[in-house]
Amino acid sequence: MRALVYHGPGAKAWEEVPKPDIIADTDAIVRVDTVTICGTDLHILKGDVPAVTAGRILGHEAVGTVEAIGSGVKTVIAGDRVLVSCISACGACRFCREGHAGQCMGGGGWILGHKIDGTQAEYVRVPFADTSTYLVPDGVTDEGILMLADILPTGYEVGVLNGGVRPGDVVAVVGSGPIGLSAITGARLFSPSHVVAIDLADSRLEAAKQFGADITVNNVTEDPLELIRSLTSGLGADVAIEAVGVPATFELAVKLSRPCGRVANIGVHGEPATLHLEEQWIRDITITTGLVDTYSTPTLLRLVTTRQIDPARFVTHRFALDEFDEAYDVFARAGETGALKVVLSRTS
Amino acid sequence: MRALVYHGPGAKAWEEVPKPDIIADTDAIVRVDTVTICGTDLHILKGDVPAVTAGRILGHEAVGTVEAIGSGVKTVIAGDRVLVSCISACGACRFCREGHAGQCMGGGGWILGHKIDGTQAEYVRVPFADTSTYLVPDGVTDEGILMLADILPTGYEVGVLNGGVRPGDVVAVVGSGPIGLSAITGARLFSPSHVVAIDLADSRLEAAKQFGADITVNNVTEDPLELIRSLTSGLGADVAIEAVGVPATFELAVKLSRPCGRVANIGVHGEPATLHLEEQWIRDITITTGLVDTYSTPTLLRLVTTRQIDPARFVTHRFALDEFDEAYDVFARAGETGALKVVLSRTS
Amino acid sequence: MRALVYHGPGAKAWEEVPKPDIIADTDAIVRVDTVTICGTDLHILKGDVPAVTAGRILGHEAVGTVEAIGSGVKTVIAGDRVLVSCISACGACRFCREGHAGQCMGGGGWILGHKIDGTQAEYVRVPFADTSTYLVPDGVTDEGILMLADILPTGYEVGVLNGGVRPGDVVAVVGSGPIGLSAITGARLFSPSHVVAIDLADSRLEAAKQFGADITVNNVTEDPLELIRSLTSGLGADVAIEAVGVPATFELAVKLSRPCGRVANIGVHGEPATLHLEEQWIRDITITTGLVDTYSTPTLLRLVTTRQIDPARFVTHRFALDEFDEAYDVFARAGETGALKVVLSRTS
Amino acid sequence: MRALVYHGPGAKAWEEVPKPDIIADTDAIVRVDTVTICGTDLHILKGDVPAVTAGRILGHEAVGTVEAIGSGVKTVIAGDRVLVSCISACGACRFCREGHAGQCMGGGGWILGHKIDGTQAEYVRVPFADTSTYLVPDGVTDEGILMLADILPTGYEVGVLNGGVRPGDVVAVVGSGPIGLSAITGARLFSPSHVVAIDLADSRLEAAKQFGADITVNNVTEDPLELIRSLTSGLGADVAIEAVGVPATFELAVKLSRPCGRVANIGVHGEPATLHLEEQWIRDITITTGLVDTYSTPTLLRLVTTRQIDPARFVTHRFALDEFDEAYDVFARAGETGALKVVLSRTS
Repeated sequence: MRALVYHGPGAKAWEEVPKPDIIADTDAIVRVDTVTICGTDLHILKGDVPAVTAGRILGHEAVGTVEAIGSGVKTVIAGDRVLVSCISACGACRFCREGHAGQCMGGGGWILGHKIDGTQAEYVRVPFADTSTYLVPDGVTDEGILMLADILPTGYEVGVLNGGVRPGDVVAVVGSGPIGLSAITGARLFSPSHVVAIDLADSRLEAAKQFGADITVNNVTEDPLELIRSLTSGLGADVAIEAVGVPATFELAVKLSRPCGRVANIGVHGEPATLHLEEQWIRDITITTGLVDTYSTPTLLRLVTTRQIDPARFVTHRFALDEFDEAYDVFARAGETGALKVVLSRTS
Repeated sequence: MRALVYHGPGAKAWEEVPKPDIIADTDAIVRVDTVTICGTDLHILKGDVPAVTAGRILGHEAVGTVEAIGSGVKTVIAGDRVLVSCISACGACRFCREGHAGQCMGGGGWILGHKIDGTQAEYVRVPFADTSTYLVPDGVTDEGILMLADILPTGYEVGVLNGGVRPGDVVAVVGSGPIGLSAITGARLFSPSHVVAIDLADSRLEAAKQFGADITVNNVTEDPLELIRSLTSGLGADVAIEAVGVPATFELAVKLSRPCGRVANIGVHGEPATLHLEEQWIRDITITTGLVDTYSTPTLLRLVTTRQIDPARFVTHRFALDEFDEAYDVFARAGETGALKVVLSRTS
Repeated sequence: MRALVYHGPGAKAWEEVPKPDIIADTDAIVRVDTVTICGTDLHILKGDVPAVTAGRILGHEAVGTVEAIGSGVKTVIAGDRVLVSCISACGACRFCREGHAGQCMGGGGWILGHKIDGTQAEYVRVPFADTSTYLVPDGVTDEGILMLADILPTGYEVGVLNGGVRPGDVVAVVGSGPIGLSAITGARLFSPSHVVAIDLADSRLEAAKQFGADITVNNVTEDPLELIRSLTSGLGADVAIEAVGVPATFELAVKLSRPCGRVANIGVHGEPATLHLEEQWIRDITITTGLVDTYSTPTLLRLVTTRQIDPARFVTHRFALDEFDEAYDVFARAGETGALKVVLSRTS
Repeated sequence: MRALVYHGPGAKAWEEVPKPDIIADTDAIVRVDTVTICGTDLHILKGDVPAVTAGRILGHEAVGTVEAIGSGVKTVIAGDRVLVSCISACGACRFCREGHAGQCMGGGGWILGHKIDGTQAEYVRVPFADTSTYLVPDGVTDEGILMLADILPTGYEVGVLNGGVRPGDVVAVVGSGPIGLSAITGARLFSPSHVVAIDLADSRLEAAKQFGADITVNNVTEDPLELIRSLTSGLGADVAIEAVGVPATFELAVKLSRPCGRVANIGVHGEPATLHLEEQWIRDITITTGLVDTYSTPTLLRLVTTRQIDPARFVTHRFALDEFDEAYDVFARAGETGALKVVLSRTS
């Protein structure tokens, strides 16, 4: 089969590799029908994720068709259309049993395209298939569900649910890339009074409006703190969601939050931030961090089925599987191309 | 009457001042029977709290007897023995109605000995008496309840409840001064499997044992991280409580916490700390800060009545009201004197 | 002034009575601009609420203008437009401080038009004005907010929040009168996947559709249990809300709920119901009851301001204040008149 | 091997049967070292549980040694000492993944000694071994952990955690049999101010005192409602736990609870109860039911290891495995024999 193989910093190729086999009896082999590229994949390609070694097939999001299952797999069979989640769950360790599969200690967690070969390939071996795949509901297209593999549960769990968004809240979302847009999508489910999107790029703020932000702030030209204060009698946002991953945006999110407010960090950070405890110790704030656990995937699936969220709207560019080079290029130059998420599909 | 008056950084005097009068109809005038000194008072004396201006009577903790009440006071009458809480609650603003009186926007919050004259005096005017004083239960001595004015609800709410301590948890408490000991006392109410006290001074660690820590670590000579890991199969503490107020202890508390753990900051900080988001973004941690709200005071009162907590055990030194100079001196030199809390009582 | 006075079972009159005076310093006198009639008022008129004695002015919902305030009132002044809530809150008792003003032990709770004279009058004395009235936001009409006095917080708190409605849930609402419609309105704020309205009258089910139910069941002709099971793979509703107040509807709500589901009773009951513990002991269900506490009123006010809920849509009939006889008649014959809520307004 | 086989209502025998084999690759075969009898087993013997058919080996609680494992078992190996839990968890279905294994839809739940052969035998086949057994910590005896198979997590989860016991609460426990004593044990972990045990038998009330009730009421001779009111300023219990399973005790528990209180039903009921909604609709109460899920087993294991709970204290009588007839007889006549829990152990 062919797959997108990482060959060390800066190097990748769509090339011929052996088709995967079942190793453990809880594995499934899934034919990849539709797959996407994540911002994390770009980080890997830069060499920022040393756990990914040369020779690894990338990718941790897919919709596909089960080809074969191990003897221990009980909930899916060959021919089933499934969502392959970015998180594999052993289902038996403490963290999996407490709903924190992202912290799985039994061999799961984020492993696809990271510690084992991933989904950017014609076929992928999916460990713990019973607890790591989800049947695609009838009538839902591949594109209509693919974003439930990673960005939608990430924005919803790590941003919206950790942030405790409630009806009537003022929610500030710092960053309007795909993850920020996921957080906006998820926040809207709780009927906040305002969702304020903050970004440096007007094009992303325009997308934020399409996804449900009713107020946008370009923080090159406007002061988001002043705006949030004007909306909240000077108090600050009920919930501030960080969706970028640099110190400045985290520090902004903390500053935007009201006394007794919540700051939910989603961003992947590469360096420390400054926490102004000399101001915050007295303000009763709650700061959360997190990797997605995917416990919300069944909920999001129901909302897709009833058309209350539409994951397909993230898709801006479409490619065939053997066009990975072009797809990576378009996605990497999102500023110019306007790409939110690019999708690659099997052609026959 | 006589009172302990702040005269600017480094200067204070026990001197004659006018007796307070009722100003608002929700005020009570309380004769101070027993009063204590807080670490915060020492900070004020150093000039660290600029909101406190020269001429201010210090003190925000007392047990006393109601002398007079305004026309709007309904729940206490002259002659009642009351606890005067460090937090005054207007009872009507958003934060008071949500249980966050520490953030009161209606003229309350921490005001005694800060923005208005305080309790280190023969008499004190207590605003919002209905929602800021608590009747002393029959049979409870002044010393038996005085620490409910500040340190016990602070340790319990900001440390233990914000930290979400649960039965079976491993709880790390960084700092074994009076606030740390309060947190240990409160944590024990939830039957954690281990309470680990961490401090630089063996004398304070000895006190921590008396208050319920089953393991103590002097982090001059031992590595608390290694110890916590050995107790938790390498995972880290379920809850880490910061009870000092400097960057190093906060950063230690974060480091000690397990994935999906909680870090509850109680310490009063004067400078920023470093938050290692490059390590923590993926660990699902929750960090909280807070000023006490005193919503737990009724619960703590019940536990005093049934002798499940004994606030009097914090009292190491006793003085008469006109011995404030000596009392401050003993408390300020706690390292030498072994003082936890000093108490001053009316003598006739 | 004139007021609607109860004269014992079956008897009432719009008649001349003395204008109320301030009694306690926390009182406000409010000129009634717009007022409505509650189903409870009909019960009182039948003699079902013995605490209401002859001579009592009825009514516990109004929007009006502050005429005068007692010396202890701090948050409203003469001339302010205010919502008069059905719940008066002393603000100082245990239940008020815990957010349960409906259970107030300090002289509040549901007292207007019950234990003291109410709002169906030209003027009303409102006790505890600081914690029992809410400023009407600029730009909001009387009708645009009146239903926040009772039915909207009742449906939201006692139905939706007690029921713990979450995104993706299947919510069954038994009863589509004004309270059921309030529960539907509130449930929609949380993006359930389905809101199923169940009633005996097609006209009310039609209203339920207008208010946000996507599925309706007339349980004269259809079996709601079968329908709910077909929606939920046989499991049952995530949340079942009882909004009628008779044994059969409560028992239906319990039967409709899934294992680990929640049953939120809003209905006012006059007789016991049967709880089938022989079926339910093993099903992990949670049943709640409650009187509204109005802790959600500030949230609902924000949602009115941002036009996310529209309380005016409950208003089907409008009258002048001196048309109380006609208004009661139209409201009492809701089955024929199609009345949801009738509104009476001051004419000059 | 020999096993205790049910032969229809009233009939059982300790007799020779085939040793179990591994059927599914997630099974373990466990040699039973110590086993107990549950009140439910007595119900089965009376014919009250029709799902149990003649020929079934009874028992759902054991400590044993793993003899063999299926190819899919990852967390235990032959020779491991394990607790066999009364709940089997498939680990993959919705309820298992949400922490509600008692409601497992994947073939688990309460199946041992019910739908499949159980633990009252020399060997038992345990399905889903990874998620249904727990390693016995070093240094803990069989008796020191056996009650974690059923009654301790039942009392803790269904009584204490569903009831939301908090420090300072007044907790009423109706029924002082083994399950009531488990609830008392669990409640004490949260430092309630009072645990009031209510029963008809003085001998059980005596046991309740030993297990941590500080007040006991024989409701033949005393009125528990009056006592609870005297403790709570007339309000009622914060939490009432039903641990019997008949209508009268459930109705008493409801009556004992305060406004805004919680009623946690643990009892197994055979007939409906009356819920006095005409009194309770206005009192903001929460009623819960439930079967144990065993999500608390790891917590309870930690508390055993640190000696904060001592499951062995439930054991009043000890037998060899081939003395099942005597053991059942002593347990069935608990009123005369004073039996709490009887234990049978392998003798060689």
